[in-house]
Amino acid sequence: MIREAVRHTGTYPDVYLQNRRTLVFRIRTARADVQRCTLFCFARTEPEKVREIPMVWEYRDELFDYYAAVVTFHQIARYQKYYFRFDDALYYSAHGFSQRCPTDGFFEFLYANTTDAVTVPAWARGQVFYQIFPERFCNGDRGNDPDGCMPWGSPPDRVHDMGGDLRGIIRKLPYLKELGVDCLYLNPVFKGDFNHKYATTDYFEVDPQFGTNEDLKELVERVHASGMRIILDGVFNHCGIHFEPFQDLLKNQERSRYRDWFFVRDFPFDITHHDYECVGAYKYMPKLNSGNPEVRAFILRVMDFWISEFQIDGWRLDVADEVDESVWEMARIVLKQKHPNMLLLGETWGSGLRLMNGTQMDSIMNYMFRDAVRDFIALGTIRAEEFDARIQKMLSDYPVDMDLSMFLPLGSHDTERFLTLCGGDRRKMALAVVLQMSFMGSPSIYYGDECGMEGENDPDCRRCMIWEESERDQELYELYRSLIRIRKKEPALRTGRQRTILCCKDVYGYFRGEGRNAIYILVNTGVDDCDLRVPVVSEGRFRVLLQTDESRQERALISTEKEAQQHFLNEDVIHYKGYLNVTLAPYSAVIFKEDQTKEGIL
Amino acid sequence: MIREAVRHTGTYPDVYLQNRRTLVFRIRTARADVQRCTLFCFARTEPEKVREIPMVWEYRDELFDYYAAVVTFHQIARYQKYYFRFDDALYYSAHGFSQRCPTDGFFEFLYANTTDAVTVPAWARGQVFYQIFPERFCNGDRGNDPDGCMPWGSPPDRVHDMGGDLRGIIRKLPYLKELGVDCLYLNPVFKGDFNHKYATTDYFEVDPQFGTNEDLKELVERVHASGMRIILDGVFNHCGIHFEPFQDLLKNQERSRYRDWFFVRDFPFDITHHDYECVGAYKYMPKLNSGNPEVRAFILRVMDFWISEFQIDGWRLDVADEVDESVWEMARIVLKQKHPNMLLLGETWGSGLRLMNGTQMDSIMNYMFRDAVRDFIALGTIRAEEFDARIQKMLSDYPVDMDLSMFLPLGSHDTERFLTLCGGDRRKMALAVVLQMSFMGSPSIYYGDECGMEGENDPDCRRCMIWEESERDQELYELYRSLIRIRKKEPALRTGRQRTILCCKDVYGYFRGEGRNAIYILVNTGVDDCDLRVPVVSEGRFRVLLQTDESRQERALISTEKEAQQHFLNEDVIHYKGYLNVTLAPYSAVIFKEDQTKEGIL
Repeated sequence: MIREAVRHTGTYPDVYLQNRRTLVFRIRTARADVQRCTLFCFARTEPEKVREIPMVWEYRDELFDYYAAVVTFHQIARYQKYYFRFDDALYYSAHGFSQRCPTDGFFEFLYANTTDAVTVPAWARGQVFYQIFPERFCNGDRGNDPDGCMPWGSPPDRVHDMGGDLRGIIRKLPYLKELGVDCLYLNPVFKGDFNHKYATTDYFEVDPQFGTNEDLKELVERVHASGMRIILDGVFNHCGIHFEPFQDLLKNQERSRYRDWFFVRDFPFDITHHDYECVGAYKYMPKLNSGNPEVRAFILRVMDFWISEFQIDGWRLDVADEVDESVWEMARIVLKQKHPNMLLLGETWGSGLRLMNGTQMDSIMNYMFRDAVRDFIALGTIRAEEFDARIQKMLSDYPVDMDLSMFLPLGSHDTERFLTLCGGDRRKMALAVVLQMSFMGSPSIYYGDECGMEGENDPDCRRCMIWEESERDQELYELYRSLIRIRKKEPALRTGRQRTILCCKDVYGYFRGEGRNAIYILVNTGVDDCDLRVPVVSEGRFRVLLQTDESRQERALISTEKEAQQHFLNEDVIHYKGYLNVTLAPYSAVIFKEDQTKEGIL
Repeated sequence: MIREAVRHTGTYPDVYLQNRRTLVFRIRTARADVQRCTLFCFARTEPEKVREIPMVWEYRDELFDYYAAVVTFHQIARYQKYYFRFDDALYYSAHGFSQRCPTDGFFEFLYANTTDAVTVPAWARGQVFYQIFPERFCNGDRGNDPDGCMPWGSPPDRVHDMGGDLRGIIRKLPYLKELGVDCLYLNPVFKGDFNHKYATTDYFEVDPQFGTNEDLKELVERVHASGMRIILDGVFNHCGIHFEPFQDLLKNQERSRYRDWFFVRDFPFDITHHDYECVGAYKYMPKLNSGNPEVRAFILRVMDFWISEFQIDGWRLDVADEVDESVWEMARIVLKQKHPNMLLLGETWGSGLRLMNGTQMDSIMNYMFRDAVRDFIALGTIRAEEFDARIQKMLSDYPVDMDLSMFLPLGSHDTERFLTLCGGDRRKMALAVVLQMSFMGSPSIYYGDECGMEGENDPDCRRCMIWEESERDQELYELYRSLIRIRKKEPALRTGRQRTILCCKDVYGYFRGEGRNAIYILVNTGVDDCDLRVPVVSEGRFRVLLQTDESRQERALISTEKEAQQHFLNEDVIHYKGYLNVTLAPYSAVIFKEDQTKEGIL
């Protein structure tokens, strides 16, 4: 076997605590290199009572297989020594590989402490987010429109306002509820510069052009009354130049009591030069020194304030990967203890390995998912094989609860609209939405994507929401609604694992969940009809839940016995029970499951 | 190449900040699989200005090579995209391997924040620790001897006292200074149960049998006046049953305000049953609920108190790997900001990957080092090859500053004495001490090891210190002194890297540092003379600094030209300039370096 491929570090995320009595053990091997991984563990005081636990295959990327075992203890998990065996041949412990069962040099898990458990708020698993850019969603109160407000629907730029506000969002809550949204994510609403408000000037007040703190309170209450949740955008890496501490610094220079809140290179300084650190190259957004204990305390105070006083459900944290990690560690330790159901969702454009190391975020804005779907579906620069490799690698990086809570965007206020990336091709868009809405994680709809809005990257992706019936893509909207409805009805789509069953050039297929309750998803990104033999994990009659090409009539599918010579993807690790013959039209997707209605039973 | 072997996660410890302008990049490949690793990086705003940086080989264990590049920036390191190339053939970026230079999917380092830098107090690198079990080191004040105190030198048990105290330590400071100690580590001195005092009952008071808080203050002052440092043992995982909060809990049961300071399974409870969580199975040491914010605050208050009020230099933290990680994260964030030179040294018996993840400890008690030396030298259960594999793996786990600050014990109050493990064989003991004192890290002498004390594991390893000249092994003491003297004289032994040059059965050889300043160490654990060809990295005449077999006269060694056909260990990654012929006697070690004195120049 390829010993170099084996990874088990003896610590997170290769072994972690789900709760005080449950440990998850994980190990990585080379792809298809072993038939069986076994975990052996024993209490160090009872070395004769060794538990032998078969590990379960979880993911397979280009190079590796990933196995896991969830082990429950009668008492608090503590002082557990353990080692692994591959097939019946080779042992692996802290001292490395050996042909014989190891007698020392074991891995050891020490103690299940309360705050060490890797917890994500239960509500965050598999929910549907809806992201709103407040200035552009709905104008519910003309009275707070700023001077120079442009007519709704004007071409967006970085200067002008269009009048969107919190009352507008309140007005549209029934629309969001109807769509099936679980949690709103609002771009910044606090007082700030620019129409995007990422240059915060007052962290304790709603921007007057969006309304008042009272409006926000009402919004949160109504959101909760509708059975939804809401998180706000916390911009703590930087502020706007009109933020009082920065103004004080400009005025008092070196003598300012906020001198160490920012990074000024030379005094005296002013805003005409780049002589202070900023986010990117935006001099109107000076970087806050988040390593300064005063600043950290300020950030924690703001975060606590809006949860304690306004009952928001959590924070989306802007450029979380640019902020001192100590801020998020403190937020997790101090605020999570006070507000255990608070969601911490960090923005990052790359891997979330650090932000998701168990001491910082619950979830990240998973742009790596979006990039993979973009490359596979919209741009066609990668094929199913690379798409799957990237996806599997990504899923393998995190504990399962984090994967299930992963914020999955197709786009945002910082990207081209996905439909635009598709060159306006609604068939491709539909495929992407089917993937997104059936994937492991928490899909996020960027406002207007559901009604066919287009737009290049910022500022064009921040157009005014289309409410005019005639301008909305009703078919696309119905696809979103149907997918969300299926997602809500089928637990497998919210909390089930994901296994790839087809992966060849233009065709990608996977199922969520297990056995008879599994939900199967197939997409064909090619221009030709595709005749597929689709392996399934239960026997019986199958029923189509959704297909994007409605011209097809394949509402019922019949499973066929497994042929001896048939080869199916991953069949060494997935126990298939048979297969279906399915024909997929070009640019089409289908979702199906075993038919367990009375009529369906053969 | 073996792609499965490659590891670079894009986060700590594969990329980390040394300071705001310096980044360390690391990558792992299969052993001897590539000739050259190259790092390419560029600012995301200037993708045309790509820096090409050759990476430097660092470690080689059984399966892997480890490379690193230290990259300095003119400004704050930020927004750096990067990727790797192996030989001239294969690229590696966040999307995996490719034959062509990647155009997207880069790794990215985002922002050099102040508190993200991986810092270890500069004083902690390569220093010599001396561990004292206070009850058994020296009785400096008969007045505080407890009732029933036994005569000095009585056989130790878990019940009786012998009278050691702080005044005794004060009295012996000149001895420690003479030996060459840099930092004392005292086992617990706070008021507590048992002679080991690991069952703390008052965290703010020195145990009366050791003296007073004033005595401790005087000790710290005198230690500092002698140019040494001192750290104390912080036992925060558990306490003694006479600790006031536990007494309150016993008295008031469920109504106690300390109810959540401990883990009681069922009320009413008492100490006759195991109905509360303890460390191990010691019911006299109830586990503190360190995840409780009140308890965490209490721990931080204690830690701060002894640093702020008594100027101790840091903490050795008992069973650090059993305490809620949030405690150490907070300690690092809050206390390190106040006391940046404070050392946090965690006890662990296994890998320190988690404790040393940059957010917790500066150093660990590296028992894995001791286990490897034990198995190689004392027990002879492994040979040089496995010893080296374990050591190299261990070194590769941590950033270089952590390796240099690693607490390296041969034994402690919790193990057999090393000389006892050697069956009393002083020759073996000498080899182990040569290894320890010339290794990368901070060697720790367990009191009395330097004068030949023996003892089985606890309680026998806690015998009274031998001060009687006639009973002390003066030869061993002189070996320690000589080794420490050489270590202090040669910067390479304190802060130099370590490279293995010989590794075959009984023989192990390595050098510290670079080029002409390199120090070479060879040990022969076998029973036969060994004729060695020892590769060296500079040319010239070499001079023996120390040899354990004094009968040899090889004070000068002359380097020989490299032979074309000669094969040397790791010569694909180390640039050797020639070799020396050296004969090592059985059970002997030698330390030498290039002779740069006038007489030495040929």
